[in-house]
Amino acid sequence: MSFPFHIANTDGAARTCVLVTPRGDIRTPAFMPVGTAGTVKALTVDQVAETGADILLGNTYHLMLRPTAERVKRLGGLHRFMRWDKPILTDSGGFQVMSLDAISKVTEEAVTFKSHLDGSRHVLSPERSMQIQADLLGSDIVMQLDQCVSWPAEESAARAAMELSIRWGARSKAAFGTRDAQALFGIQQGSTYEHLRRESSERLQETGFDGYALGGLAVGEGHAAMCEVLDYAPAMLPPDRPRYLMGVGKPIDLVEAVARGVDMFDCVLPTRSGRHGQAWTWAGALNLKNARFAEDDAPLDATIPCPASRDYSKAYLHHLVRADEILGQVLLSWHNLAFFQALMSAMRAAIAEGRFEAFRKDFHAGLAR
Amino acid sequence: MSFPFHIANTDGAARTCVLVTPRGDIRTPAFMPVGTAGTVKALTVDQVAETGADILLGNTYHLMLRPTAERVKRLGGLHRFMRWDKPILTDSGGFQVMSLDAISKVTEEAVTFKSHLDGSRHVLSPERSMQIQADLLGSDIVMQLDQCVSWPAEESAARAAMELSIRWGARSKAAFGTRDAQALFGIQQGSTYEHLRRESSERLQETGFDGYALGGLAVGEGHAAMCEVLDYAPAMLPPDRPRYLMGVGKPIDLVEAVARGVDMFDCVLPTRSGRHGQAWTWAGALNLKNARFAEDDAPLDATIPCPASRDYSKAYLHHLVRADEILGQVLLSWHNLAFFQALMSAMRAAIAEGRFEAFRKDFHAGLAR
Repeated sequence: MSFPFHIANTDGAARTCVLVTPRGDIRTPAFMPVGTAGTVKALTVDQVAETGADILLGNTYHLMLRPTAERVKRLGGLHRFMRWDKPILTDSGGFQVMSLDAISKVTEEAVTFKSHLDGSRHVLSPERSMQIQADLLGSDIVMQLDQCVSWPAEESAARAAMELSIRWGARSKAAFGTRDAQALFGIQQGSTYEHLRRESSERLQETGFDGYALGGLAVGEGHAAMCEVLDYAPAMLPPDRPRYLMGVGKPIDLVEAVARGVDMFDCVLPTRSGRHGQAWTWAGALNLKNARFAEDDAPLDATIPCPASRDYSKAYLHHLVRADEILGQVLLSWHNLAFFQALMSAMRAAIAEGRFEAFRKDFHAGLAR
Repeated sequence: MSFPFHIANTDGAARTCVLVTPRGDIRTPAFMPVGTAGTVKALTVDQVAETGADILLGNTYHLMLRPTAERVKRLGGLHRFMRWDKPILTDSGGFQVMSLDAISKVTEEAVTFKSHLDGSRHVLSPERSMQIQADLLGSDIVMQLDQCVSWPAEESAARAAMELSIRWGARSKAAFGTRDAQALFGIQQGSTYEHLRRESSERLQETGFDGYALGGLAVGEGHAAMCEVLDYAPAMLPPDRPRYLMGVGKPIDLVEAVARGVDMFDCVLPTRSGRHGQAWTWAGALNLKNARFAEDDAPLDATIPCPASRDYSKAYLHHLVRADEILGQVLLSWHNLAFFQALMSAMRAAIAEGRFEAFRKDFHAGLAR
């Protein structure tokens, strides 16, 4: 039984919806902070929850290697282990095996790879990925195992990966079975080839999933090429189920993808930028290390109800970044997550009020200022 | 006018008191977390406040070099800069100039040193230290400039440093002048020589300070030798003013110093240990990296009302430390500060109830278990 998905409002292709899960509602458009190794880097789960996140993403690849999925299971599952009681989506592990590990071997059966931690050999099949995500980690939203090609890709390579992903999707679904409290998402592939994306979507729907992701984007093609794919790819997916654009992205990517009908996102950008002294704002990204902030007594954004955004001066953040203090990484990661949630909240409100195009125009004008 | 200092209870040499400052009461025995460069490392001030700390320590040496005391002043003073509205004690900068910087030159007039950041030359005199602490940073409790010798010290060197400290103390007081809302503490020196400690105390009291520190300890002499000095040195200082043991220490040092009449402490230990995977408990220090914690589902201390102590399993902390996650440093620093405050609170209660000796015995038994 799929989680209920209520479409509250549409405005052009953009829409605001609620995905109802046993662990809580996910308001879309939704941004999922990434908790790679059982932690959203540098932040407590309470700080993450305060930003308004309805759901986190966990990485199967990292968790299966350390502390291992079996250990997480023995410790009560991923929610209890990391103290997050709202929904968690886990990726399949496939993308990271292929992007982080050069010596992986892909066969029809499975991906074989060596751990970046100790060189030990591991096998990830659709069945094993389902076991790790659904049974051991206890994820609320499970992703099928897929194969993603890098960009640019020859059509033949893109087709082969898309077709393998379809077969792995069917095996993922068979292994996942029928569950009341967990959902399984399929992943559309096809690189930047419209006819491959169409074929992928049609065959995924023959298998039938609780939600559908757009895979194989944000892999180097750039904003414009990604938008070209998003001009057609989301509409190929069933409108009555959530559409999730994996690994995206910058605020401008989020706004343009929402305009094209995407509902869910995840990205390490806010926390990674925060660890490197960058703050995301309505005016774009600021480098707090810059001397122009040395005596700037204003906060990053007084309108965001997050202590990191509202209460600390840019001068103080500048000092922390210059002095390489951990608190600088903490506060900027926290602010960035709060800003991303404020952006999603503003988009949801604009769609609900039928003024998304005006919002989008204002957003671009803010960046250009 | 000195801050009021109310002695609530005594139990042997131990005592529990309240130092009343315009920014809030300091309950003694008090442990002051160290906010070296305008931040208690890895923690927000709200997290620090939650542990029950009544006062923080700031380091003049670090702040005068970066962001500079003048910049802190332009940004509204240290309290506003770092968002801590309770009392702050600042050290004089002298100890760190001498311990961190090999090429400093000490004359009757001042210490000259080179910045560890950019090699620039700086001069720290008693008058300049008062200006930085009292006028620019806006500290609540200001420390006189002193000279501290390393251990072991020849008697002639210990005497020379003690006598210079007395003269610098008098100049510090003259420069500090009379202030309603700020206090100035003198510093007893004399290494491990009882007659020098006595002479230092007598001459300090001729100058007259709002409180008195025990300097020149925790510089390598070890717990037993420190306790020998504490057998006589605190009693040389006026009982009606707070006694502050600088740079101390481990929990066992705090208990033994309180037993000998010390009221205030500061140390980087809890936060430094926390950044290195160590947790302080009633059973001593635990190394969370140790494999025996890998599946230990219990929290560090369920009785301490701090999320880091109470809510996260040792297995999770073990995972974070092994994975070198910032959150591990955050949570262990936070727990350690909460444990140190729980220890001070337990000592205050034991003294108030006239059972400090029993507490002390239990504390030692807990370490031996």
